[in-house]
Amino acid sequence: MTSLRRVALVGGGATRFGVRAATWAELVQEAGAALYRALPELAEVEVDSLFVGAAEPERFAFQSHVAPLAAEQLGIRPRRILQRTELACASGQSAIRSAYAAIASGLSDIAVAVGVEKMNLPSMAEANTAMACVMDRAWDGVHGATAPPFFAMVAQRHMLEHGTTEEQLAAVSEKNHRFANTNPTAQFYEKRFDREKLLRLPLVAPPLRLGDCSSMTDGAAAVVLVAEEHARRFTRTPVWVRGTGQYSDFHNLAHAGSLTEWRGLTIAAQEAFRGAHIGPKDLDLAELHDCFTISEIVEYEALGLCAPGEGGRYAAEGRSDLGGEVVVNPRGGLLGCGHPLGATGIAQALEVYQQFAGLVPSARQVPSPTWALVHNLSGSANVHSVMLYGGAA
Amino acid sequence: MTSLRRVALVGGGATRFGVRAATWAELVQEAGAALYRALPELAEVEVDSLFVGAAEPERFAFQSHVAPLAAEQLGIRPRRILQRTELACASGQSAIRSAYAAIASGLSDIAVAVGVEKMNLPSMAEANTAMACVMDRAWDGVHGATAPPFFAMVAQRHMLEHGTTEEQLAAVSEKNHRFANTNPTAQFYEKRFDREKLLRLPLVAPPLRLGDCSSMTDGAAAVVLVAEEHARRFTRTPVWVRGTGQYSDFHNLAHAGSLTEWRGLTIAAQEAFRGAHIGPKDLDLAELHDCFTISEIVEYEALGLCAPGEGGRYAAEGRSDLGGEVVVNPRGGLLGCGHPLGATGIAQALEVYQQFAGLVPSARQVPSPTWALVHNLSGSANVHSVMLYGGAA
Repeated sequence: MTSLRRVALVGGGATRFGVRAATWAELVQEAGAALYRALPELAEVEVDSLFVGAAEPERFAFQSHVAPLAAEQLGIRPRRILQRTELACASGQSAIRSAYAAIASGLSDIAVAVGVEKMNLPSMAEANTAMACVMDRAWDGVHGATAPPFFAMVAQRHMLEHGTTEEQLAAVSEKNHRFANTNPTAQFYEKRFDREKLLRLPLVAPPLRLGDCSSMTDGAAAVVLVAEEHARRFTRTPVWVRGTGQYSDFHNLAHAGSLTEWRGLTIAAQEAFRGAHIGPKDLDLAELHDCFTISEIVEYEALGLCAPGEGGRYAAEGRSDLGGEVVVNPRGGLLGCGHPLGATGIAQALEVYQQFAGLVPSARQVPSPTWALVHNLSGSANVHSVMLYGGAA
Repeated sequence: MTSLRRVALVGGGATRFGVRAATWAELVQEAGAALYRALPELAEVEVDSLFVGAAEPERFAFQSHVAPLAAEQLGIRPRRILQRTELACASGQSAIRSAYAAIASGLSDIAVAVGVEKMNLPSMAEANTAMACVMDRAWDGVHGATAPPFFAMVAQRHMLEHGTTEEQLAAVSEKNHRFANTNPTAQFYEKRFDREKLLRLPLVAPPLRLGDCSSMTDGAAAVVLVAEEHARRFTRTPVWVRGTGQYSDFHNLAHAGSLTEWRGLTIAAQEAFRGAHIGPKDLDLAELHDCFTISEIVEYEALGLCAPGEGGRYAAEGRSDLGGEVVVNPRGGLLGCGHPLGATGIAQALEVYQQFAGLVPSARQVPSPTWALVHNLSGSANVHSVMLYGGAA
């Protein structure tokens, strides 16, 4: 067997997330400008590979073959690997996993992973239709099983099985929106949501209200991953990839098992933990895929942060908040930051880097973190992707 | 530095290419059936990773998040890596390069790379519009610079600079269509084209006639790549990945340099050759990206098979034919097989495997091949991707 090279995450930059007047290409350019501001050393080295996470530029931006377009916007001419990865809502993390594999194998030394999505169109009917083809279009999407109704079914089932309440859902949303108020790149940076307000928002798909759902968002983010020997060139606080895992369970909803036990996440997380010889309780922070409030609750359970069925209470008791057991989504989550599909996984990794480097406002700084996990699901929670990061070592 | 694990290509299967009544998912299923027929051992092992090459399922098949859909059609539940890669016309090779990186690094042991495209729609106007977004849509596609006019400009310029003739273009088409007549999976398996007939076909974009252009094609193909220790389980004739290279030059056509010198291909091929310590003249066969006849001619030159400007004569003199110097596109090429974007790169790799294993009809069998190169370009020939394969070693 081979010995993998160690891979470091050394920083990055992001655009403001929200309803943006910018085009797809302009968003990439803006993330690139933020990247080069954060890492001016990047101008002095050769970036040999570029991985572009983008879910649906073909429909949202009427643009395919986006990898060389992104390269041009960033001013990068990759000599090793240029690739766009698509895994719907997990497209950003998919780009990071590819960069990790390329560097670990020695095929790349210095790689940029950029994620981008431009979801707000003049016709939002068009945008919503595009989202329908993330599910199995011929069997599920065409019958209206898009994301909100699917995750509403998960919530209803969780309520039935475990007595989870709307107030517990709102606790997740309140926490993540509060964190977003510390993050100037978040879509809802300026918006305040308390639990009472959240519980009065309009229903989208019962029991999920507007504040339980992440948004259709425009945004881009970029991070740099490098082989160990280059890490100190960029930062005094490299963050190391210590594990990765992924599992794909089914596609067509008719083949789904339990709605409330996300076995794929459990398997993917165990795989990521295995190499590092740690468990869920060792985590200091976790960037989880809170596309809906119920997702974060089910994820606590699947990850093993709490027992099955206890996710709602775990949130309501503040155990996933600052001062709790594991700080979940200090960036503000998909709920507070918005969810530009391809950009999300990259922005989560950037938060991990900035948390380890002590670069975030104190209102969301996790004290001296050692271990962080990033999770993305895609589609109907049928695919789960996990990255595990560790600090100084 | 690390030592990469050796990676073997051990076989695969493909659907018939053509205008097919099958859906996107059905094409994947059909390629999977061919794959399991060719490699029954696959049913006894765990395929840990799946890489899906698909260019535009979002537009052609109104389906995104295609990786888990393909996994379900193939009956695979990947525990390591599940990913769709998009690089327009090179999406298939992009999947193979990702599988290679994953296995070389030790992240995967047994991987399937499947490529698929369903391009024939009830409305071909819709399909042609989709192709316009492969180019830089906002600057080039919108002005009509889709593939045929772009490659027609390349041909016109090559004629002006080097005296290349329509007859020389037709020589490429005649060779590749003749090879396709030996390949039952080729779109034009039953169609005969001689040089005189080709020169009377309608003009698409002058000087390119219908026979100079690859088709809008439906099809899928799948191959298996494994770590060295698993290779003999599948075949007595594993084919080894001996090099890989890629270069991205520009995106917006305004930034293109010479139309007739494809520097990106030269750089990518040199990178692939470098590790194996061989050069272009050592190749026994090459699967080149003949999306248009002029492409194959320019590729001879950029690869170094002949001198700049001599590509037309190289074809006309039969130097790229059986009995010549390097057999180019014995499978039938994109011209003879059709060009289902995501499937093409996989079908080319399958041809290489079958040539090395002696599984192709004698009318196209290259005698005792040792070295083979697969090339794909994407977009306006702005990105070039190369794989180098070697036999017994």
